[in-house]
Amino acid sequence: MSDKLYDKILEIALKRSILIPSAELYNAVSGFYDYGPIGVLIKKKIETVWKRMFIKMHGFHEIESATIYPEIVFRASGHAEHFADPIVTCKKCGMKWRADKLLEERVGGSYDGVSEDQLTRMIKDNNIKCPKCNGELTDVARFALMFKTTYGGESKNIAYLRPETAQGMFLDFQRIFATYGSRLPMGLGQVGKSYRNEISPRRILIRLREFTQMELEYFFNPEIDDIKEFEDVKDVVIPIMGKDNQNIENITVLQAIEKGYITNKIHGYFVVLTKQFYDMMGVKEYRFRQLNDSEKAHYAVGAVDLEVNTSFGWIEAVSLAHRGDYDLSSHSNLSKKNLSVFDDKVGKKVMPNVIEPSFGFDRLFWCVLESSYRPVTDEKKWEWFDLPMFISPYHAAVYPLVKKEPLVNTANDILRSLRGKGLDVIHRATGSIGRRYARADEIGVAYCITVDFDTQKDNTVTLRFRNDGRQVRVPINRLYEIITLFTDNDVRTLGGSKKVEEFPVVK
Amino acid sequence: MSDKLYDKILEIALKRSILIPSAELYNAVSGFYDYGPIGVLIKKKIETVWKRMFIKMHGFHEIESATIYPEIVFRASGHAEHFADPIVTCKKCGMKWRADKLLEERVGGSYDGVSEDQLTRMIKDNNIKCPKCNGELTDVARFALMFKTTYGGESKNIAYLRPETAQGMFLDFQRIFATYGSRLPMGLGQVGKSYRNEISPRRILIRLREFTQMELEYFFNPEIDDIKEFEDVKDVVIPIMGKDNQNIENITVLQAIEKGYITNKIHGYFVVLTKQFYDMMGVKEYRFRQLNDSEKAHYAVGAVDLEVNTSFGWIEAVSLAHRGDYDLSSHSNLSKKNLSVFDDKVGKKVMPNVIEPSFGFDRLFWCVLESSYRPVTDEKKWEWFDLPMFISPYHAAVYPLVKKEPLVNTANDILRSLRGKGLDVIHRATGSIGRRYARADEIGVAYCITVDFDTQKDNTVTLRFRNDGRQVRVPINRLYEIITLFTDNDVRTLGGSKKVEEFPVVK
Repeated sequence: MSDKLYDKILEIALKRSILIPSAELYNAVSGFYDYGPIGVLIKKKIETVWKRMFIKMHGFHEIESATIYPEIVFRASGHAEHFADPIVTCKKCGMKWRADKLLEERVGGSYDGVSEDQLTRMIKDNNIKCPKCNGELTDVARFALMFKTTYGGESKNIAYLRPETAQGMFLDFQRIFATYGSRLPMGLGQVGKSYRNEISPRRILIRLREFTQMELEYFFNPEIDDIKEFEDVKDVVIPIMGKDNQNIENITVLQAIEKGYITNKIHGYFVVLTKQFYDMMGVKEYRFRQLNDSEKAHYAVGAVDLEVNTSFGWIEAVSLAHRGDYDLSSHSNLSKKNLSVFDDKVGKKVMPNVIEPSFGFDRLFWCVLESSYRPVTDEKKWEWFDLPMFISPYHAAVYPLVKKEPLVNTANDILRSLRGKGLDVIHRATGSIGRRYARADEIGVAYCITVDFDTQKDNTVTLRFRNDGRQVRVPINRLYEIITLFTDNDVRTLGGSKKVEEFPVVK
Repeated sequence: MSDKLYDKILEIALKRSILIPSAELYNAVSGFYDYGPIGVLIKKKIETVWKRMFIKMHGFHEIESATIYPEIVFRASGHAEHFADPIVTCKKCGMKWRADKLLEERVGGSYDGVSEDQLTRMIKDNNIKCPKCNGELTDVARFALMFKTTYGGESKNIAYLRPETAQGMFLDFQRIFATYGSRLPMGLGQVGKSYRNEISPRRILIRLREFTQMELEYFFNPEIDDIKEFEDVKDVVIPIMGKDNQNIENITVLQAIEKGYITNKIHGYFVVLTKQFYDMMGVKEYRFRQLNDSEKAHYAVGAVDLEVNTSFGWIEAVSLAHRGDYDLSSHSNLSKKNLSVFDDKVGKKVMPNVIEPSFGFDRLFWCVLESSYRPVTDEKKWEWFDLPMFISPYHAAVYPLVKKEPLVNTANDILRSLRGKGLDVIHRATGSIGRRYARADEIGVAYCITVDFDTQKDNTVTLRFRNDGRQVRVPINRLYEIITLFTDNDVRTLGGSKKVEEFPVVK
């Protein structure tokens, strides 16, 4: 891909208000982006597909927990201790930089888990100076990644904005487990904001200070580390790198488990579901990678990342971690409340283990924009995003062929009817029909509906399909059904069905 | 209503994991509640209805903006200066209390806009002591209501969590206005978290520190303060109190404008839309109330609240404010960027004015629970929530009559099919069918689907309707259509149609 693709995408995203730098009137603090109208429409549709695949199809539960917790929660979770970046400060201009990222950019390689002393030495050995003013850099120090605040007017009441949504699921586990019949396994997930006070946010949506996560915590008895859906997907081939390999192997998920890249069948099942989700989103160039011990988060027994090749290079887009019983055990210890549960199947108390697929929404969104971007060609004289139909921002545009009655009135009736049924529909009465089609393409409208003089005679309209410009004549009363056939993606064949590999990636 | 209704509702909400006190393992900081599985299902459905009525039906735009902004944003918005509560501290135990709320509870009346000096005198005159330890109270001081944090590792980089979602719409207005053809009026809305560092959060969901708002900013040319949809609703009768009256008048919205209770027709239109929304939610006892000058927010030209009578008494549930050009002018001044726009219709530049319907989601949710709560009766031996069908947490439950094949298999096929189409469906194979119906009622399932031995013969199932227990036999392939007839509420007749008053409140 072009080195400059990200500049191009950002330019279009800003021009069309897909993304807006937060508080840009005040030259915006970096690391914050708003989603504008089209951005939100795409975002909500992607979130809906994720929830269907990762939560609803499985009968798991969605929650919505607080984004602020008192400090003790993060002492239990380990974030208070472990969640900090290695930072150097310029002695001349005062700018702060992430030591590991400076080394990655100047020297190459990965520096996860490398100690402060080692990083300091490497910065000196490689004679790295301040990227802004070329000043000398300090030794490396740890910088806490959580946003700190206080509540209730007492400076001793310290709280943090959550750095992951996951803790909500651990804190609420016990109560929900009791409500829902005290049976393992149980899945709890949520989609919501998380916050990391990055010292140097960058790469547009790739490293934000405020971002959306889509996370599922799958609680299971560690003595029964299987999931019935695995049988249906065991032969699915995935591209994966073992922690000691530099090459990608295309092997079945079962083989990846046997080789020790993936910890167990549950883990493997969610790796496949993640692959299918990214396939559906139209992202093509990705790989799974087993993390080595220094790269893994402090809570992880084992971890596999999904990485995507973008115009920024390979980026981590999904983390699939086996968190063991780290979180429930820690919360048990600190709260003095035993979170182990009685499992009928083994006739004793166990501390549930957790497999966690954790999706960074904003990175996914960026990958989707890059993958679907189409430059100007001889046929289409405008740039557009060839989004999968079911995440197109608008289901349809309704156009009267000319701005005359009764065409305008009929168009308005159709508009209201489709909106009333929950579809996202725009309309426009002026401009040439060709220009209006072009505009619809630009902003990702799936179908254009044109009301013309024949409409009054036979109650039919022209339906134009975005991707190939094909036009068909359809009755008004069948519009909803036809439009939703492809835009309201049916994921029933995923998550447990034998037909999982036959699932059509509808475009 | 019983003084204790809120205790009863909270007890059920906790038992069924509808609500969960955040971080309750650690005895929870007050003012934070998580939504559990059923709570989230209801919440998302309510949000969907709100977005359809207040955003999508009108062709307005939804955005999702940052929840953290640098201090300068709140200097422009006036929150840095005005957004603070009057507080007294106990000299003995150190507890902090809101002076106005203490007076409301002990003396009665409303103390909005009363100065610190006056409040201090009234506290002393009424001999009010610390409610906890009976200690003496300090003079009244202002306490900032925003959560403060810093970004980028510099203590001088002060930022606040947003106390309202609205500022996102003002900050992003200019860019979106340009993208969408530079035409007034334009509506921008969003649903998201806001934060207020309340000194004494209380009354469960009524005063939270972290809460969800649903807000719309309607930008219009102040010289054209009309909206075409008003004509359709002008004769709708609303219960409203003028600022100088203590009694409720049932008058048309047009009369309320003529009497000066409501600032203009746009304001009036959104008052009616708010009434219709609350009607749809099944909330019955409410009134509109014009705020007097001391009650109005610092940005408001005029304001009308929707107040609901709950077991806590009358509470403010919706604020409908005419914000004038306060926000855009302030941001223009502080950012040195002129946010006025050229309006074709009047041929000159104008600073848009704003009407804002602002809904507190959590208060609405509480009102819905109270209104729909049904105690045990001779007919139904369990407590339940008679929620409007389209916000029932689960669309359906699928039950095989007995746990035998092929019944279980067929039930699973139906389950997968309905979930694949996006419906929220639970299932259970064990227990008597009567007990399973009861359980479904308890958690608010709209329809129960029972697969029995006849199902294999004719592909039909029994469909049981929650509210009256009525049962009908329907073909499997029509289930989706029949279930969504009432659960997927069609709001097409709202927001512009002449049939607005005929809209059926589907129960």
